[in-house]
Amino acid sequence: MAKSAAQHLCQPCLYLTGEMAEFRKYMEDKPFMLQLLEWSLRGVAQVILVNNPLSGAIILCALTMHSPWHVLLGTVGLLSSTLTALIIGQNSKEVSQGFHGFNGMLVAILISLFSARGDWYWWLLIPCCLAGATCTFLYSGLSTVLGQWDLPVGVFPFNMVIMLYLACTGTSNAYFPHQPVPPPGMLEHGNHTELDITRLLVGVPVGVGQVYACDELWASVVILAAVFLFSPLMCAHALLGSGLGILAGLSLAVSHVSLYSGLMGLNSALGCMSIGGLFYILNWKTHLLAIASAFLSAYSNIGLTNVLGMVGLPASTWAATLTVTLMMLLTGQSLSSYRLPLSRVSSPEHSLRTRGCWTAADTNAYV
Amino acid sequence: MAKSAAQHLCQPCLYLTGEMAEFRKYMEDKPFMLQLLEWSLRGVAQVILVNNPLSGAIILCALTMHSPWHVLLGTVGLLSSTLTALIIGQNSKEVSQGFHGFNGMLVAILISLFSARGDWYWWLLIPCCLAGATCTFLYSGLSTVLGQWDLPVGVFPFNMVIMLYLACTGTSNAYFPHQPVPPPGMLEHGNHTELDITRLLVGVPVGVGQVYACDELWASVVILAAVFLFSPLMCAHALLGSGLGILAGLSLAVSHVSLYSGLMGLNSALGCMSIGGLFYILNWKTHLLAIASAFLSAYSNIGLTNVLGMVGLPASTWAATLTVTLMMLLTGQSLSSYRLPLSRVSSPEHSLRTRGCWTAADTNAYV
Amino acid sequence: MAKSAAQHLCQPCLYLTGEMAEFRKYMEDKPFMLQLLEWSLRGVAQVILVNNPLSGAIILCALTMHSPWHVLLGTVGLLSSTLTALIIGQNSKEVSQGFHGFNGMLVAILISLFSARGDWYWWLLIPCCLAGATCTFLYSGLSTVLGQWDLPVGVFPFNMVIMLYLACTGTSNAYFPHQPVPPPGMLEHGNHTELDITRLLVGVPVGVGQVYACDELWASVVILAAVFLFSPLMCAHALLGSGLGILAGLSLAVSHVSLYSGLMGLNSALGCMSIGGLFYILNWKTHLLAIASAFLSAYSNIGLTNVLGMVGLPASTWAATLTVTLMMLLTGQSLSSYRLPLSRVSSPEHSLRTRGCWTAADTNAYV
Repeated sequence: MAKSAAQHLCQPCLYLTGEMAEFRKYMEDKPFMLQLLEWSLRGVAQVILVNNPLSGAIILCALTMHSPWHVLLGTVGLLSSTLTALIIGQNSKEVSQGFHGFNGMLVAILISLFSARGDWYWWLLIPCCLAGATCTFLYSGLSTVLGQWDLPVGVFPFNMVIMLYLACTGTSNAYFPHQPVPPPGMLEHGNHTELDITRLLVGVPVGVGQVYACDELWASVVILAAVFLFSPLMCAHALLGSGLGILAGLSLAVSHVSLYSGLMGLNSALGCMSIGGLFYILNWKTHLLAIASAFLSAYSNIGLTNVLGMVGLPASTWAATLTVTLMMLLTGQSLSSYRLPLSRVSSPEHSLRTRGCWTAADTNAYV
Repeated sequence: MAKSAAQHLCQPCLYLTGEMAEFRKYMEDKPFMLQLLEWSLRGVAQVILVNNPLSGAIILCALTMHSPWHVLLGTVGLLSSTLTALIIGQNSKEVSQGFHGFNGMLVAILISLFSARGDWYWWLLIPCCLAGATCTFLYSGLSTVLGQWDLPVGVFPFNMVIMLYLACTGTSNAYFPHQPVPPPGMLEHGNHTELDITRLLVGVPVGVGQVYACDELWASVVILAAVFLFSPLMCAHALLGSGLGILAGLSLAVSHVSLYSGLMGLNSALGCMSIGGLFYILNWKTHLLAIASAFLSAYSNIGLTNVLGMVGLPASTWAATLTVTLMMLLTGQSLSSYRLPLSRVSSPEHSLRTRGCWTAADTNAYV
Repeated sequence: MAKSAAQHLCQPCLYLTGEMAEFRKYMEDKPFMLQLLEWSLRGVAQVILVNNPLSGAIILCALTMHSPWHVLLGTVGLLSSTLTALIIGQNSKEVSQGFHGFNGMLVAILISLFSARGDWYWWLLIPCCLAGATCTFLYSGLSTVLGQWDLPVGVFPFNMVIMLYLACTGTSNAYFPHQPVPPPGMLEHGNHTELDITRLLVGVPVGVGQVYACDELWASVVILAAVFLFSPLMCAHALLGSGLGILAGLSLAVSHVSLYSGLMGLNSALGCMSIGGLFYILNWKTHLLAIASAFLSAYSNIGLTNVLGMVGLPASTWAATLTVTLMMLLTGQSLSSYRLPLSRVSSPEHSLRTRGCWTAADTNAYV
């Protein structure tokens, strides 16, 4: 009896926050098109590690107001990769959590962003479709390899496919030219002006918006609100990570433009969010690990930007992906005991609460 | 009794086609030199994924008429890597299937092809010997890692060793200079002439011949005939893949020269053959996967050629190798159920037939 | 009785040579600061694969006389990574063998060596601390992945972190500029002078000293003596490897300067030592493998130096690390039966002796 009471207390109290597990159950017997809509909205939110269809809808609205063309292509990439996953028979639980959509969406947004032909160049629909489908193949293949160590695939497919696309086309391609990636020197020069503290502070939330390649303050704030809906703790870690990324940038005298634009905060925000609550149970130790992860992501990003820039490629989110993968492989007992198995990953609040339940249940069991 | 009848029906009817398993049994008690000859001929054919000594002999003849110097060095590389495998005690079954020879042969052919000193520069014998032996070490080491996921090693060693050799020597080396790898821009410029459909069609079979770095039509046709002897299905997929590679090249406005020379078809032919029948049981689903594999190989090749060209290295067959590895890791149930375990890989026809036997045997078992 | 007599014979006779296992036992109940000192001295020696605190002390003295500033920073890196390992709760046995210190020390020495600001630029303390801590994270994460195949982590973390640091800062950074890495052409040009045999012979021991980025003969000889204290066999293999590296360099007409400076011998010395006795039981077969490993390390180093030089990065000890990893993955039965499991790795003499004991014990058991 004590056990069931403890379990009762731990049930999600709110229907719109966290993973919206009640809503998922409610949708299970609905028509396919409605389910696909839910999966796609979850996929939109999964870009920023959020598993909540309402957050996805909010983010989609913000992005549509920011740039309808990017959203159109993003949706094509999202649907292409989700449908490919259904066709090749991927695990339906993974599909329903949006795991097979977010890489396709990100790739498509970046393809349209890098295009030198401007908006509404309809031929881009073809690479977006193909890139979305390729993401699903990569997701499926990588999950076999990374599954050996219970590691998440995350945005590995996105990073690979966008590099492949940019390497294939180049800046002078006849059909799909793209804008030159800023040369490596850019990060270090052009600091003739004084540092503008206001713009620096604006760069903190914009760093989170840059996850969706969005550099406007208001849209970034809406995206942060959508993250808050899923998990206030992750929202706080996103802001913290973005701020630490700017600090890291300052410590290496990175160009002011990349600090203001949020490009310095993007990777560290993702690195900080992933460790701070999502893949580890949050406590002061894992909070420190999240800070370390943010710094390592930021410095790795600076290094990768410099090296990859020499062959004309962007560093996109390689830094955060590799750093988070590293942090999840740690064997130190002070940390590894707090790591969640991938099958139990949920919102930080939920992980904290259910852990409380386990303890309560264990305590009751001994009484 | 029904079972043995089914087995009888499934036995290989022809002695010269497929894997020539009867011939292998016949050779088992022959002198070492004759066995080594059989293993080497299988190794020659394994370059194009064919496990048949007669195909190997045919290909060797065609190559010898095309360029005796390349064949001489190729044979040295082949023997060097096969003997190294015997010396370090590799699995004798693998050796007898030619798995330890083909990488050495390919490396030696490409070393002679890239050499800036022209044919009959006898000092090349030394790097060819060393490169062949290194291939065996890499094959052995990689098989431990890739065996974790039951993946084939394929031409990974060849790609690594040829990159290592070219990176070591460079274009201005005093002893072993090599010709400059075409700069990355080459793929995109120089399309001032109109597309010549005849030459484009010739490029389809030549793309298959390029597996042996051979750019002549008649030799390519002989190589295709040797593949046909092993498996008509793989021959068809090789041509299909090569054609799709040219399509992919056209879609990105690649230079006409690389379309005509078959360099665009090489990787996609390998990617298509591997999936279309060899590592997956052929049906319409895996046929579509083979087409996807051909396209992905072709695009990856374009991307890798551009990026590696910036550091002066060729993309060789990295694209096909990586794509096939990815395709074999897929977890989607519609596809993964048709994947053959490495230990059962044989000619596509044999895989189809034995699968039929299993079904027949199973059906009989229930009767 | 026969058994215990055999064991008695096999006990380490000298207290200062080999792993000094008696000394470790003696230190077990000493205060933490003394233990940390022992671990750190072992860490200093682990850079050159030696697990002996006395060797560490000797090397530290030689390096201090060579360059006190490098040693100061090296010590900071060493302590930073060892303490990080203690804080995140790494396996205490690994810590006590110095496994978590040597990467941090190496990184810190190379950071100070590459710095364009000269000695006693105190701001370097910050990157040295951070780099040391990062090494521990990488060591911990990589050990999970490499442990799958019972592979040692070795200097992977050092190589990664030094590349990351140099990629982040660049030659024109405002705070931490570093000297330009020699451009790739350097290896091939400038051979206008005749080969100086004396300087070439001096390059052999200096190649071993280069493991600690030390290019003076007397210091290299002291380092060799410290290796001799741990294991005369490894000392011999270090010299052999360094010599073979110079041979490999001569065979590709590498610039004389890099032969004289020992930079050609560094990787091959490490490759030869690791295989010759440490990870394999020494006999004539594994001795030949050690020679192959030395050559492969040397050629890989030349290739990597050329390619990485194009993006402004040094090859450091990637070549030896990758070659040793490959050599430990070999499956050929003539070799793999002599490979020691990581948990039994000790000094070559100890491995030979204990193997003798096993045989003796086994023989007695049957009597």
